[in-house]
Amino acid sequence: MRKIINKPENFVDEMIEGILLAHPDQVKTPGEDPRILVRADAPVAGQVGIVTGGGSGHLPLFKGYVGQGLASGVAIGNVFSSPSSQQVFEATKAVDGGRGVLYLYGNYGGDVFNFDLAADLAELEDIETRTVLGRDDVASQPKERKHDRRGVAGIFFAYKAAGAAAERGDSLEEVAAVAEDVVEHTATMGIGLSPTILPTTGEPSFDVPAGEMEVGIGIHGEPGIHRGPLETADEITDRLVSALVADLGITAGDRVAVLVNGLGATPLEELYVMYRRVHQLLADRGVTIERRYVGEYATSLEMAGASISLLTLDDARLALLDAPAASPFFQEV
Amino acid sequence: MRKIINKPENFVDEMIEGILLAHPDQVKTPGEDPRILVRADAPVAGQVGIVTGGGSGHLPLFKGYVGQGLASGVAIGNVFSSPSSQQVFEATKAVDGGRGVLYLYGNYGGDVFNFDLAADLAELEDIETRTVLGRDDVASQPKERKHDRRGVAGIFFAYKAAGAAAERGDSLEEVAAVAEDVVEHTATMGIGLSPTILPTTGEPSFDVPAGEMEVGIGIHGEPGIHRGPLETADEITDRLVSALVADLGITAGDRVAVLVNGLGATPLEELYVMYRRVHQLLADRGVTIERRYVGEYATSLEMAGASISLLTLDDARLALLDAPAASPFFQEV
Repeated sequence: MRKIINKPENFVDEMIEGILLAHPDQVKTPGEDPRILVRADAPVAGQVGIVTGGGSGHLPLFKGYVGQGLASGVAIGNVFSSPSSQQVFEATKAVDGGRGVLYLYGNYGGDVFNFDLAADLAELEDIETRTVLGRDDVASQPKERKHDRRGVAGIFFAYKAAGAAAERGDSLEEVAAVAEDVVEHTATMGIGLSPTILPTTGEPSFDVPAGEMEVGIGIHGEPGIHRGPLETADEITDRLVSALVADLGITAGDRVAVLVNGLGATPLEELYVMYRRVHQLLADRGVTIERRYVGEYATSLEMAGASISLLTLDDARLALLDAPAASPFFQEV
Repeated sequence: MRKIINKPENFVDEMIEGILLAHPDQVKTPGEDPRILVRADAPVAGQVGIVTGGGSGHLPLFKGYVGQGLASGVAIGNVFSSPSSQQVFEATKAVDGGRGVLYLYGNYGGDVFNFDLAADLAELEDIETRTVLGRDDVASQPKERKHDRRGVAGIFFAYKAAGAAAERGDSLEEVAAVAEDVVEHTATMGIGLSPTILPTTGEPSFDVPAGEMEVGIGIHGEPGIHRGPLETADEITDRLVSALVADLGITAGDRVAVLVNGLGATPLEELYVMYRRVHQLLADRGVTIERRYVGEYATSLEMAGASISLLTLDDARLALLDAPAASPFFQEV
């Protein structure tokens, strides 16, 4: 194990302690439980709250996107484990500004179970909630079953747009509609070159032999759609972009936002080599890249690999991407 | 090899192509040579230029810090190799706004040789230059020989301060003095847990067996001051902070900026576990952390490891850190 940690069982809480010590101007814990973070000015009266969450091990997901113009609160669990319903409920109460709360998180069974329970608890306290699930991983289910897809890095776009909608004063219905619209127009596919080592066990969570790649891998190492010898950056990018373009039905004249995301151990240099190819491929198809994001936006501890997300744009979605945002890991000025 | 690349010999140029395609509003190549990047509005008339550079493989060093309030130009070489004197000279001409150019880069033999030659070329064209070397790696030489130390992640502070000084209209002498002052008050030490794999060879550039650590490692894998079994995050952080505090002579009442920097493969979670300990250690000593930066600021491809940098602050240095900056990888608003 090549990790800079103390006792594995303290890993998550010590990491959160570090975030709170580093960013006291942006985030706070509303109560005693350190697993719940909300924006420092929560609750914002008259503004729809947005609660997200999921397992730890994906920074900057989820804790990094709490702030102005993004999510307003987060509940996180152990590494790759859902937070409890009670934690989600506590986050909900802490961000409720009187206009309801959107639950916006990735489509995983444990998270769905606990957020749904939290919604029931919120209803008992007259806090209205809506739920929109990130389900952008096109490799996890075919298009006919797209509503069952997993959520991965593309949820960044949904945070950005829904957060901007909440910030401008949209109603809960409107913020949920914005998030749903962005999810509908987002597709992601990833590739993994090495496994993640879980802190608690010190063992790889799955297996990708050196010199091989897993196309369509999930951010917890879920198996993809193709395992084979490692290809070149261009071949890999061609595979991913082809799948995304087909899934979203992108054609000449379309406008998109691109996210080239590192899964943990892959150097930024390699992400730019991939971005270069994405740009070429989309230009060849007559597609305009209006905005691009290159870096680590949703990781899987130290997995080597990357994902590409595309969001098809209209003027409304583009304006929401460009709205101001400020959180520990992402800002838009 | 677990890399997403095409032909290894094209790695650097394809990466640069990606950066240029992604950030055309912020950086440009002034001529034909893609290894030279300058801020998009260069040269800025009446403003001192700042040229940096070095080998590739350290993103966001060096290309990431070109922009408003930071470096104004960069010349980069192959992975871990110096740019040529001609490339540095071309960058110099492209950023010269009539008030001279500061060379600000890390203290490595090849870089010093080529930047010094470029300074001679610049002099022939009546462009005045000054040189300040980043030499913050306390493990590379004892304090008596601090002027021979290597430059590592702490150069970020010097970019930020010198860039702010140039932006406000300081003279070349003044900008150089600001950079020198920051370098004098900066100290860094790193730890490596795994080697870097060079794209061209596919082989590790050095050796750190699993379960061991190299304290004081350089960003090219230069040997440190201690090799031994991997310790806990707190033990490691204690080692690094103790060395930095002793080197800078930090005592109760002092104010500092902290940079906890990931070397490539180390998850952000682990950097926050370290930051938490840095905060505890400095608070215990009565030292105030005025600003903190946690993330990947200077890497070594996919090396697992981290470094800690401290900059002691006075009001002048703090104001320069807080001045506005905008580059592909760092912005301060």
